[in-house]
Amino acid sequence: MSRNDGRTNDQLREIKFTRGWLDHAEGSVLVEFGKTRVLCVASFSPGVPRWLKDSGTGWVTSEYAMLPRATHTRSDRESVKGKLGGRTQEISRLVGRSLRAIVDTKELGENTIVIDCDVLQADGGTRTAAITGAYVALADAIAWAKKEGHIKANSKPLADSVAAVSVGIIDGVPMLDLCYEEDVRADTDMNVVCSGDGRFIEVQGTAEGVPFDRALLDQLLDLAVGGCKDLARMQSSVLAK
Amino acid sequence: MSRNDGRTNDQLREIKFTRGWLDHAEGSVLVEFGKTRVLCVASFSPGVPRWLKDSGTGWVTSEYAMLPRATHTRSDRESVKGKLGGRTQEISRLVGRSLRAIVDTKELGENTIVIDCDVLQADGGTRTAAITGAYVALADAIAWAKKEGHIKANSKPLADSVAAVSVGIIDGVPMLDLCYEEDVRADTDMNVVCSGDGRFIEVQGTAEGVPFDRALLDQLLDLAVGGCKDLARMQSSVLAK
Amino acid sequence: MSRNDGRTNDQLREIKFTRGWLDHAEGSVLVEFGKTRVLCVASFSPGVPRWLKDSGTGWVTSEYAMLPRATHTRSDRESVKGKLGGRTQEISRLVGRSLRAIVDTKELGENTIVIDCDVLQADGGTRTAAITGAYVALADAIAWAKKEGHIKANSKPLADSVAAVSVGIIDGVPMLDLCYEEDVRADTDMNVVCSGDGRFIEVQGTAEGVPFDRALLDQLLDLAVGGCKDLARMQSSVLAK
Amino acid sequence: MSRNDGRTNDQLREIKFTRGWLDHAEGSVLVEFGKTRVLCVASFSPGVPRWLKDSGTGWVTSEYAMLPRATHTRSDRESVKGKLGGRTQEISRLVGRSLRAIVDTKELGENTIVIDCDVLQADGGTRTAAITGAYVALADAIAWAKKEGHIKANSKPLADSVAAVSVGIIDGVPMLDLCYEEDVRADTDMNVVCSGDGRFIEVQGTAEGVPFDRALLDQLLDLAVGGCKDLARMQSSVLAK
Amino acid sequence: MSRNDGRTNDQLREIKFTRGWLDHAEGSVLVEFGKTRVLCVASFSPGVPRWLKDSGTGWVTSEYAMLPRATHTRSDRESVKGKLGGRTQEISRLVGRSLRAIVDTKELGENTIVIDCDVLQADGGTRTAAITGAYVALADAIAWAKKEGHIKANSKPLADSVAAVSVGIIDGVPMLDLCYEEDVRADTDMNVVCSGDGRFIEVQGTAEGVPFDRALLDQLLDLAVGGCKDLARMQSSVLAK
Amino acid sequence: MSRNDGRTNDQLREIKFTRGWLDHAEGSVLVEFGKTRVLCVASFSPGVPRWLKDSGTGWVTSEYAMLPRATHTRSDRESVKGKLGGRTQEISRLVGRSLRAIVDTKELGENTIVIDCDVLQADGGTRTAAITGAYVALADAIAWAKKEGHIKANSKPLADSVAAVSVGIIDGVPMLDLCYEEDVRADTDMNVVCSGDGRFIEVQGTAEGVPFDRALLDQLLDLAVGGCKDLARMQSSVLAK
Repeated sequence: MSRNDGRTNDQLREIKFTRGWLDHAEGSVLVEFGKTRVLCVASFSPGVPRWLKDSGTGWVTSEYAMLPRATHTRSDRESVKGKLGGRTQEISRLVGRSLRAIVDTKELGENTIVIDCDVLQADGGTRTAAITGAYVALADAIAWAKKEGHIKANSKPLADSVAAVSVGIIDGVPMLDLCYEEDVRADTDMNVVCSGDGRFIEVQGTAEGVPFDRALLDQLLDLAVGGCKDLARMQSSVLAK
Repeated sequence: MSRNDGRTNDQLREIKFTRGWLDHAEGSVLVEFGKTRVLCVASFSPGVPRWLKDSGTGWVTSEYAMLPRATHTRSDRESVKGKLGGRTQEISRLVGRSLRAIVDTKELGENTIVIDCDVLQADGGTRTAAITGAYVALADAIAWAKKEGHIKANSKPLADSVAAVSVGIIDGVPMLDLCYEEDVRADTDMNVVCSGDGRFIEVQGTAEGVPFDRALLDQLLDLAVGGCKDLARMQSSVLAK
Repeated sequence: MSRNDGRTNDQLREIKFTRGWLDHAEGSVLVEFGKTRVLCVASFSPGVPRWLKDSGTGWVTSEYAMLPRATHTRSDRESVKGKLGGRTQEISRLVGRSLRAIVDTKELGENTIVIDCDVLQADGGTRTAAITGAYVALADAIAWAKKEGHIKANSKPLADSVAAVSVGIIDGVPMLDLCYEEDVRADTDMNVVCSGDGRFIEVQGTAEGVPFDRALLDQLLDLAVGGCKDLARMQSSVLAK
Repeated sequence: MSRNDGRTNDQLREIKFTRGWLDHAEGSVLVEFGKTRVLCVASFSPGVPRWLKDSGTGWVTSEYAMLPRATHTRSDRESVKGKLGGRTQEISRLVGRSLRAIVDTKELGENTIVIDCDVLQADGGTRTAAITGAYVALADAIAWAKKEGHIKANSKPLADSVAAVSVGIIDGVPMLDLCYEEDVRADTDMNVVCSGDGRFIEVQGTAEGVPFDRALLDQLLDLAVGGCKDLARMQSSVLAK
Repeated sequence: MSRNDGRTNDQLREIKFTRGWLDHAEGSVLVEFGKTRVLCVASFSPGVPRWLKDSGTGWVTSEYAMLPRATHTRSDRESVKGKLGGRTQEISRLVGRSLRAIVDTKELGENTIVIDCDVLQADGGTRTAAITGAYVALADAIAWAKKEGHIKANSKPLADSVAAVSVGIIDGVPMLDLCYEEDVRADTDMNVVCSGDGRFIEVQGTAEGVPFDRALLDQLLDLAVGGCKDLARMQSSVLAK
Repeated sequence: MSRNDGRTNDQLREIKFTRGWLDHAEGSVLVEFGKTRVLCVASFSPGVPRWLKDSGTGWVTSEYAMLPRATHTRSDRESVKGKLGGRTQEISRLVGRSLRAIVDTKELGENTIVIDCDVLQADGGTRTAAITGAYVALADAIAWAKKEGHIKANSKPLADSVAAVSVGIIDGVPMLDLCYEEDVRADTDMNVVCSGDGRFIEVQGTAEGVPFDRALLDQLLDLAVGGCKDLARMQSSVLAK
C-alpha cells in the first residue's frame, strides 16, 4: 500500500518555515506542512494580565483560527456567527498549553506573548503545524525582546523546543503526518506534542472507527516521536540562520 | 507515600451508580466517584437531525456542564455570561465521541439520544465519571426504547460498554483516579477511555509540569486500563439488577 | 372532586428538606415539594459589589435555572443558546427580591450571599419550592458565617423567615400547591410569598383563561396564607435540628 | 398628606390618548399618564408562527422597551449591550399576556398582531400605561383588518377591553397611579390589570420595604379596580371618536 | 417631470424642529423632514471615558436606531436579535463623526455628550435628519451646561453648525431631499454633510444602479450644498428663539 | 514636500497581484498595495439565498476582516469578542456593493459568489486594496464556473471591471494611495471606487480635521480617478496572463 503523494509511512510531508513573513510582528512564521499553510505570529507586550501582576512571571497564550476558505468548501466565519466553535477553542487551548510546557515564565519576566495561528490553507494536520510553527515565532519574539532589552540577555525563557505531528491508522497501517484525504480515511487519529529532547507534552489519541489496542498505540507513539524529532531538527536549523 | 484517603495507588475511589434518579427521563443515573457526583440523563426522541434524515442511522450526542457551586468556590454561570467556555465544549465533545465509539447507529435506527451530564459536586475526575455514568444512562434509555417498541427487540445498538478513568503522576508515582487535591499536585494528568473489552477509545495525556517519558506513559496506561476494567465490571453488575 | 394524589384542596404535597446536601457550600438544601426537587445552594463571600463598597450593608441575590431534562421533555440549555430566557430571569429576580425582603443587610455587614436554585426535577411549583428552600440554605450560610467570625455573633441578619406556595383555580375550585398536571388545567394561577409572621412579600396572580373576580381572589389568598404558615413551621423545625 | 401634583389619593394623572400617531402602522397610539409617554404600535400581518399553522387561531404578542434617555439619567441601549435585560422581558411578557386575556384568537383567524410599546419618556407606571395604550392600538389594528377584509366583519376578536394601573402605599397611605417620585418612596408597589368588566387579569404586588398585611392589600385592590374602571371608560370614549 | 408632493427638484420637504420635546434631557429635539420623524436627545455628563482622562478634552458621540415600526413593515428589534446591524452602526458612526467635526473638544472641557437619534417614523433621509436635528439638541445641551456652570460661560465648544441632506438622481434628474418612494427609484444616492459655512464634512455617494459620471456628481454636490445652506439657516433661526 | 517612500503625489505604491494563491478556491488573489497585503478569495456555489430562489438572478456578496496582528499592535479577535465591529461591517458592505455594481446578476444565473477579503498585513488603504483584488478573484471564479459549465459560455456576468483607491490631503496637498503613516497625518480622507470606464461607483470623503472646500474635493476626485484608471489597466493585464 502506498500513499498518494509517494511518501513512505514514516515520512513527513515537505516542511517549510518562512521567518519574518510580516513586517510589524515581533515574530512571524509561515509554516507549511505540504499544502497546509499556517501563519504563526507572536506579539510581545510588556506587562501581564491582572492575575499575574507582581508575580514576577510572564504569560504565553495562543489563539487558533481558520480563514473561511482555508478548506475545500467555505465555512461561515465565527466572528459573523458571534461565537467560537468548540473545535477552535480546543485547539487554541492545546497550542497555548504546548508552548507553556517549554517556557520558563520566571525567566520571561512580567511580559506577555500571544501567538496567533491562522490557517490560510488546510490540508490535514493544521493543529500540529500550528504548534510547530508557533515555536519558531515564539523564539523569534523572545530574541527580539532580548535585543530590545525587554528581557535580560542572559535569561533563558525557553527550556526546550516543542513540535507536534499527527499519526493515524489507515487500513491497519500506522502512518505519519496525514494529509486531509488520509485523515478522512483513518480509523484512529493521534496528535502528539513532544519537547525537543523527545519527551511527551501532549498525547491525544481518538478511535474514529473501532477502538484500538495497545500494540497499535505503541506503533503510533514510535512513529510520532520520530516525526517530532525530525521537526525539532528543522526548527533548530531554521532558527540558526 | 500514602494517599490522603488511604487508597492504594491503583485503587478507585468508592464508586456508586443510582439508576432511575429522575422520574421522567428514559435513562438517568447519579454516578459518584468518591465526592464527585454527576447526574447523567439520557433523553430519547424518535427522529434524527436534518443531516441524517433518511440515512437509516441514529444519533447520540452529549452535553456536559457544572452547577455554579459544584466546586470549592462559586463560578459564574455560562448561561448568564452568554457563552460556553472552552473547557465545557471540549468535555461535551469528548463524552459524545466516547459514547458514539461503542454505539452501532445503524442498529439504533433513526432515533436520537442526548445524554446530559451535569456535575452536581466536583472533586476531580468529573469528565471520566460523566462518561462512565453516561453509558449506564444510555443503556437504560435503549432498554426503555426497546420495551416501548421504538427500537426493534433484537437490534443491538450497543457494540460494547465504555468507561473512563483519570491517572496521574504525583511526586514521580503513577496513581489511579485522582481526587481534586491530588489532581492539583499532579505533574502529568491523563484521561483514558476504554471499551469494555479493554481497548482504547481516547487517550489524552498532558504534561502539567515537565514533559514525561515513555516509561511513565506506559505505567499510566497500565494503571488506567486496570481501572477501566474495574469500572466495566461495576457497570455490568449495576445494569444486571 | 378529588386530586389525583388524594390530597385535600388545602393540603401541601409531601415536603422534604435535606440540609448539607453538598460538601463544600456554606449552605445547601435539597428541597422537595412532591416530585419537584430543587437544589438550593448558598455561597458566602466576604465583600460586596462595587456599588455597595463602604456602605456598611451586605448583598443577597439569587439565580434560578433548570436542568435540561428536569421536565417531561428535554429543553435546550440556555448556556448553549447563549441567552437567558425571560422566564428564568423573571424567577431569579423574584427569588432574590423575596429573600431580601426578610434580610437586614445592615446586620449582614459587607458580605455577599448568592443563592443558586437549580431545578433537578420539575413537577409544578418550582419557583415557590426554590424560595422556600433558599431560605433554609441562607439561614445555614449565615450560621456558618457567624461560626467562622465573618458576621458578629449577636447580629441578626434575618428579620423573619420566608416561604412561598402556589395556588390555583381548577374547575372553579381553589386548590393549594399545584403539581404540573393540575397547573396545566388551572384557570388562574397565583404565587404567594409570605414572611414567617404571615404577611405578604409578593402576590402574583394571573388569569390563564378567563379573568377572575374578587371573591375567588380572596379564597386563593386565604389558601396561600395557610400553606405558607405550614411551610414556615417546617422550615423552623428543620433548622432547629 | 397631599401629593406633589395636588391629586387626591384615588385620582389618576392626566390621561391622554393620541390615536393614529404614525402614518404607516395599522394601529398606533401615543398614550400619556402625566409625564409618562408610551408609543404603542400594533402591526398586523396575515399568517401565524409555525407552531400555530392550520390551528385556525391567531396570535397576539408584545414587546416593551425604553429609549435610552426616557429616564432621568441615560441608560445604555440593550441592542448595544447585545442582550435584553430581565426587566424588559418581564414587562414584554406581562403586556402580551394581558392582551391575550381579552382576545378571542379563534375570532382573530390565522393572523398575527404584534404590539410594540416604546417608552419615550418615563415618569412611573410605564408598564401600566403600555397595557392601557396597547389595547387602543390593538382595537384600531383590528378595525383596520376588518375594513381591509383580513378579518370577517362579524367576527369579535375582542372579548372585552383591558387596562392597568399601579397602586402603592406611601407612609401607610394607599395611593393610585404613582409617578416616579412617589414610586421611589412607596413601601409596597402593586400593578393591577383588569378587564373592562372589572375582573382581574393580573395582580402583582411587591413589598419593597416591610411585608404588608391583608387589610392594606384589600385597600390597594379597591383603589386599583376603581382606577382601571376610569381608564376603561376613557378607552371606550376615545375609541368611539 | 414632477415630484409626487409637488416640490421642485431643489426644494426641501417641510422641515420642523420641536425643541425641548422631553422633560429630563439636557437637549432634545423632534426633527421632521416631511414624514420622517427623528427624536434627537443630547445627554450631558461631567467626565470623559477612561482613554481621555486628564487630557483636558471632552467627548461627543452618537447612537442611531429605529423603532421597529418606523418603516412600512415591522422589523425585528436589534435588542431582541442580540446584535446591532451593520447599517445601524454605520449611521451611528457617521452622526458622531459629523458632530465631532464642528466641536472643539478642548473648549468642551472634560465632559461627555451622547446624542441619541431614534427614528420614530421613517420616510427617507433618516440619517440626514438625524444629523441636522442632533446639532440643535447638542447646542441646547451645551447652553444648559453653560448655564449650570459645567462649561465656562466664555468657552466656545461649537466651532460651527452642521447639517445634512440627501440627494439623488431619478430618471437622470438630480433631486434634493428624497422621500422613501423617491429613494427607492433613485439610480444614485448621495448623503452630504456640510458645516454652516458651506464646506464639506462628509460626502457619501453610491451608484445604486449604473455608475455615475463627473457631471452628475457635480450637479448633486451643488444641489446638496444649497440644501444644507437652507437647513443651516433654519437651525440658526430655531436656536435663536 | 516629498513622500517618505519617494513617490510623487499622484503615484500609486507598488501593486502586485498573485493569482491562484490558494489550491482549493475557485478564485484567489493575494493583492499588495506596498506593504498592505490582502488575501481575496472567491467561493462559487450553485444556488442562491432563499429570497432569490426562482428569480433567475445570482448573488455576489463579500466579507472583510483583519488578522489580529495585521496592524502595528495586536487587536482582539472579533470572533473572541463575539461581535463584529462597526468598521468591519461597514467595509464588508462597501466591498459587496462595489462588486455588485459591475455584476450583471441575470447573466450570472442562480449562482452565488462570496468574496472573502482577509487583511494579512495593513499599511493603509486596506479597503481599496480589498475591492481591487476582489475583482480579480471574482473574474477568476467566473472563468472557472464557465469552464465547469455552471455558467453558460456566452454569458457576460461582468459588465465592467472595478477598482478603488484612497486619496487624502496632507498639509494642504492632495496625495494618492496613502500608506498608514500618511493616513494618520491626513486632514481629509477619501475612498473612491470607479468602474473600468472611469465612472464613479462610490465616493466617500471624510473631513478628519477641518471641513474641506469644493476646490480640494475636485482635486481629490481627479487624483482618484487617475489612480483607478492605472489600477484598471493592471487588473486587465494580470487577468490577460
